[in-house]
Amino acid sequence: MIKAGIIGATGYAGNELVRLLMGHKEVEIKWYGSRSYIDEKYARVYQNMFEIVDDVCLDDNMEALAEQVDVIFTATPQGFLAGVLTEDMLQKTKIIDLSADFRIKDVATYEKWYKLEHKSPQFIEEAVYGLCEVNREKVRGARLVANPGCYTTCSILTAYPLVAEGLIDPNTLIIDAKSGTSGAGRGAKLPNLFCEVNENMKAYGVTSHRHTPEIEEQLGYAAGREVTVNFTPHLVPMNRGILATEYATLVRRADGSLPSYEEVKAVYDKYYAKEKFVRVLEKDVCPETKWVEGSNYVDIGFKIDGRTGRIVMMGALDNLVKGAAGQAVQNMNLLFGFDEAEGLNLVPLFP
Amino acid sequence: MIKAGIIGATGYAGNELVRLLMGHKEVEIKWYGSRSYIDEKYARVYQNMFEIVDDVCLDDNMEALAEQVDVIFTATPQGFLAGVLTEDMLQKTKIIDLSADFRIKDVATYEKWYKLEHKSPQFIEEAVYGLCEVNREKVRGARLVANPGCYTTCSILTAYPLVAEGLIDPNTLIIDAKSGTSGAGRGAKLPNLFCEVNENMKAYGVTSHRHTPEIEEQLGYAAGREVTVNFTPHLVPMNRGILATEYATLVRRADGSLPSYEEVKAVYDKYYAKEKFVRVLEKDVCPETKWVEGSNYVDIGFKIDGRTGRIVMMGALDNLVKGAAGQAVQNMNLLFGFDEAEGLNLVPLFP
Amino acid sequence: MIKAGIIGATGYAGNELVRLLMGHKEVEIKWYGSRSYIDEKYARVYQNMFEIVDDVCLDDNMEALAEQVDVIFTATPQGFLAGVLTEDMLQKTKIIDLSADFRIKDVATYEKWYKLEHKSPQFIEEAVYGLCEVNREKVRGARLVANPGCYTTCSILTAYPLVAEGLIDPNTLIIDAKSGTSGAGRGAKLPNLFCEVNENMKAYGVTSHRHTPEIEEQLGYAAGREVTVNFTPHLVPMNRGILATEYATLVRRADGSLPSYEEVKAVYDKYYAKEKFVRVLEKDVCPETKWVEGSNYVDIGFKIDGRTGRIVMMGALDNLVKGAAGQAVQNMNLLFGFDEAEGLNLVPLFP
Amino acid sequence: MIKAGIIGATGYAGNELVRLLMGHKEVEIKWYGSRSYIDEKYARVYQNMFEIVDDVCLDDNMEALAEQVDVIFTATPQGFLAGVLTEDMLQKTKIIDLSADFRIKDVATYEKWYKLEHKSPQFIEEAVYGLCEVNREKVRGARLVANPGCYTTCSILTAYPLVAEGLIDPNTLIIDAKSGTSGAGRGAKLPNLFCEVNENMKAYGVTSHRHTPEIEEQLGYAAGREVTVNFTPHLVPMNRGILATEYATLVRRADGSLPSYEEVKAVYDKYYAKEKFVRVLEKDVCPETKWVEGSNYVDIGFKIDGRTGRIVMMGALDNLVKGAAGQAVQNMNLLFGFDEAEGLNLVPLFP
Repeated sequence: MIKAGIIGATGYAGNELVRLLMGHKEVEIKWYGSRSYIDEKYARVYQNMFEIVDDVCLDDNMEALAEQVDVIFTATPQGFLAGVLTEDMLQKTKIIDLSADFRIKDVATYEKWYKLEHKSPQFIEEAVYGLCEVNREKVRGARLVANPGCYTTCSILTAYPLVAEGLIDPNTLIIDAKSGTSGAGRGAKLPNLFCEVNENMKAYGVTSHRHTPEIEEQLGYAAGREVTVNFTPHLVPMNRGILATEYATLVRRADGSLPSYEEVKAVYDKYYAKEKFVRVLEKDVCPETKWVEGSNYVDIGFKIDGRTGRIVMMGALDNLVKGAAGQAVQNMNLLFGFDEAEGLNLVPLFP
Repeated sequence: MIKAGIIGATGYAGNELVRLLMGHKEVEIKWYGSRSYIDEKYARVYQNMFEIVDDVCLDDNMEALAEQVDVIFTATPQGFLAGVLTEDMLQKTKIIDLSADFRIKDVATYEKWYKLEHKSPQFIEEAVYGLCEVNREKVRGARLVANPGCYTTCSILTAYPLVAEGLIDPNTLIIDAKSGTSGAGRGAKLPNLFCEVNENMKAYGVTSHRHTPEIEEQLGYAAGREVTVNFTPHLVPMNRGILATEYATLVRRADGSLPSYEEVKAVYDKYYAKEKFVRVLEKDVCPETKWVEGSNYVDIGFKIDGRTGRIVMMGALDNLVKGAAGQAVQNMNLLFGFDEAEGLNLVPLFP
Repeated sequence: MIKAGIIGATGYAGNELVRLLMGHKEVEIKWYGSRSYIDEKYARVYQNMFEIVDDVCLDDNMEALAEQVDVIFTATPQGFLAGVLTEDMLQKTKIIDLSADFRIKDVATYEKWYKLEHKSPQFIEEAVYGLCEVNREKVRGARLVANPGCYTTCSILTAYPLVAEGLIDPNTLIIDAKSGTSGAGRGAKLPNLFCEVNENMKAYGVTSHRHTPEIEEQLGYAAGREVTVNFTPHLVPMNRGILATEYATLVRRADGSLPSYEEVKAVYDKYYAKEKFVRVLEKDVCPETKWVEGSNYVDIGFKIDGRTGRIVMMGALDNLVKGAAGQAVQNMNLLFGFDEAEGLNLVPLFP
Repeated sequence: MIKAGIIGATGYAGNELVRLLMGHKEVEIKWYGSRSYIDEKYARVYQNMFEIVDDVCLDDNMEALAEQVDVIFTATPQGFLAGVLTEDMLQKTKIIDLSADFRIKDVATYEKWYKLEHKSPQFIEEAVYGLCEVNREKVRGARLVANPGCYTTCSILTAYPLVAEGLIDPNTLIIDAKSGTSGAGRGAKLPNLFCEVNENMKAYGVTSHRHTPEIEEQLGYAAGREVTVNFTPHLVPMNRGILATEYATLVRRADGSLPSYEEVKAVYDKYYAKEKFVRVLEKDVCPETKWVEGSNYVDIGFKIDGRTGRIVMMGALDNLVKGAAGQAVQNMNLLFGFDEAEGLNLVPLFP
């Protein structure tokens, strides 16, 4: 039984972490950190936890916390962890960071897209990008895991095998992503009010969303060269779920013909057939967010368009599970040598 | 490890049963019965089950099924089980019926409200009404359990202690209930289309809803006399959840004064303090359906109105869990001597 | 062509006023008052008004405004108008107040329920409660109209004829009301976030909601005596619409029998047959909020319950139209002698 | 005052036509055709029309109808009008067809995408594609107007000026469209049930949706050559609204640089500055469906991506208004020489 602390436990991702860890056999939560609700009962902030969690919220003292637990989850705003992280902490505890602070290897890129000065660039190199299906072995030995973003997990996993195997031209990649509103967090902001989101559809962060460089960096590793993509997020009137619709030009065979359905499917299977949490759907089945809600699955489907020579790839996940807390638990399982699926055997909840 | 069969496995309650039984250590599903989808893969009907359930749907042959399993769940339309049930089946297997066929002891009442002839009244007497918190001991020894309705579970549990202890006049009871749309089932009917339900609120079945006599019968047992109530269901644009707002006149003390908050609370605690799945909330906290979604909890709150001498009781549950499949599993646990909460340690999913 | 000013033009009710006045032949808006958005273009705050409204937002200087316009709408927080109103203003302009400041005749009652000191009680007496179907003649001659609340308009009109004609015992009246979320306003508050409201149902303000005394006062006039009721509002995951489900014990005839459907219907027709904006539905038809969305209608239905001796009355309206801006325009039409329906010939928008 | 008939008056588009024509000064509806509801009161099918429309539904006898009215709207399934249309009808009345029967000039293309034999190809040539902003003059003289599809109106108008003026390479065009559920019609189909659509996002008709050839044909006219695009529709849990996010590679200047924001804006303004119903938004403002709901507007915004050399264009409209009934009324206004905006001065309804 290991001990865990959560900083940012009263955000939506924090609450989801609590839900998942409650069902994990090997972990005990010792610290519910929440700057906004110090000394309040956690179950008063999240009434779903009534009679389940008795603890009160504590502050975000990482140093004190590092003394007490085996792993810290930081579900905090950008810049928090980079602002407080020390070598001493990392010698005492493992850290899984759900913010973007250590996801991007190039500091200049981070600072440009996030418009923040990075306060502890010395830890970027060692941080492991915790996309489990891609970096499993590296995660096992890490001290600091940069848990991927919700859009990025979906966007990358959907295209990764085809980029890695050269079936598509990565610079033609256009990612049109749609997200439920929990991705916007629990801050009391006018654009996230019920009446503003409900009965509405909009794009935002067009050409400038911060998940873009994260996607480009990871797909760049797959391609073996720099990759530039279009990524457009949209806000959907639903609580959970991300759907990424991705368009790319297929690389034709020497004779000018397009790869077949079977060839593309074989490439997906090569990467994902043994992956419990990635489900490549049957032919002509499109992923839908409702089929993964509450679970750690990513569902992937695709369709080849012979008319335009493009492929349309689609991926769906639950932004709070595989897109945040679930992947964080998966990373924790890798870090501590637990069964990778422990605490994550979640059957999607429908309807 | 016992074996279970589900008849009506492709309705919403059937799918929820599958979800819950997948997480139950002592049960294996051997039969996914669905008259509409015979020979189709279950996971094509419910894509959330892809790579989780490999079985194809079978028919609804109860006789064949009774030979093979220890327990049958019938999540079927009214009249189905009554039409096929035999003594032979009950000698071979236990049956938990999610329909209303065996909930009401008086056949005439059943036939009047359901407008159906009851085909096997000889089993009504032995059937146990499976409201676990009230009938726990009776359920343990049963062969046939009548699993309560979703509205009724919520409506009864919210008022039960106050009726049983004489704190309210049961004939003043008015139950105004609101339900998510999954309660209407998966049939392709115009009134349940997205555009008809979304952005709308309506009452239905006013003064004539079939759950009325079920509520009256059970509260009548609590009161020790016949009880007549108003019950009005409403359809809410959400998937899951029932909220029952219940109004009743408090019985005044000899001096004409009203019972205090503490007295009422003590009565609730007397009945529910040890009940894992009933959470009596703290003072002035109103239950909300979002705090129980996906779980087997019923949350209860109340408020005394000194001005009118009435009490407003509120109960919330997930209609597919405590209101259907969850309670069915709870009943199964009682029938087979498992831990009553096995498979039901579900933390509510939010948001 | 008269001139109008709106204070609080950037709230939801303010925006709805703008929408309605844009379609009104006799009015021109001269002042878009909004303390929060001074000097910003109105159409940047409400993008629906792009290329329709070119004005920028102004402050809430009532004195300056009173010089310039024939009528002022105050869609402002409680206490604002009472804090600034002067005899001088009322001599220069008419005022239609969408807040509660002048709705309640008894200052003590106002101060108790609103927990505010009333700053200009001297105008309460002359203020006319602008429930047009009830107070039409008084409104015509008024200087100051107290526009009714959304819940109250729905709750009162649904029960009014039966109370006035003595068909029900008003002290048995229980009003269970359900509202869309626009009723909560456009303030950036956590409980009104999309993820908090969506997929949820809750009661709030139980036994203490401020619309209670307003309902009691008006129904008291109808009854000719003091009336005490239970009123419970609920928040529904939809943008617009209020449904009030109201329960009351019918007054029996001398022979102990209940009034018939036809008798009750005749009483409703007596009051509403000539009312354009009140639609008494056909037998057994329940009102639904979707059928009045965007319009100034109140739809009313009812059902007699012979078993309990109660009647279930149901009323539905659009909280931003008949419950706020529409009724304000209807009052303005009365004040200035326009056709009462001018600007309000709105066909409900569905779906 | 002209007379109009509607065939298919009980579909969502039919109901919207009724709503709009109720507010039109020059038209009277004489025929509410609905094969499914013959002899039922229209207002029982659409309760919003209670006390507004007194008529009963009639059959779909086009010959009888052509005798009686000046214009017929056919809001019918594909193939209906082509199956019954005669020269005689067209000599007696004008027809505005909301189905796809006469939208596509090439019969083979129609038959391939719609999998239907076209029963009256002889009228295709004369039919005018009723995209008013593009074909205004042709519509004025027409007898038969093919009212554009909802997705196509949005998709075409968003890209049209840039294709026509050669600013983008039309063969790089990728249209990712998102629609509210009213676009799926009022048929009682399982995939359109509330619980199936709510809390879900999915693509459908990937690479094969029937609106594709319609978009390609019209943009081909703009480009002066054949155009092939990717078009992917998605279903969104909301009632109304379409958002099209469109991606295309900008044509670079001779020096390799990209066109500027001002150049692109000027091209949009050239086409739309005088168009009442097309609103090109201010710089960096993204269209949102909520800002056009209930109105005939199309809102357009765009963003140049210097990194990828692409432009992201976005268009939003109400699928039942500009995407169906509103455009049909606009076409009718052109046909009969009315003010083009008569009956369409609709301020968007928010929230």
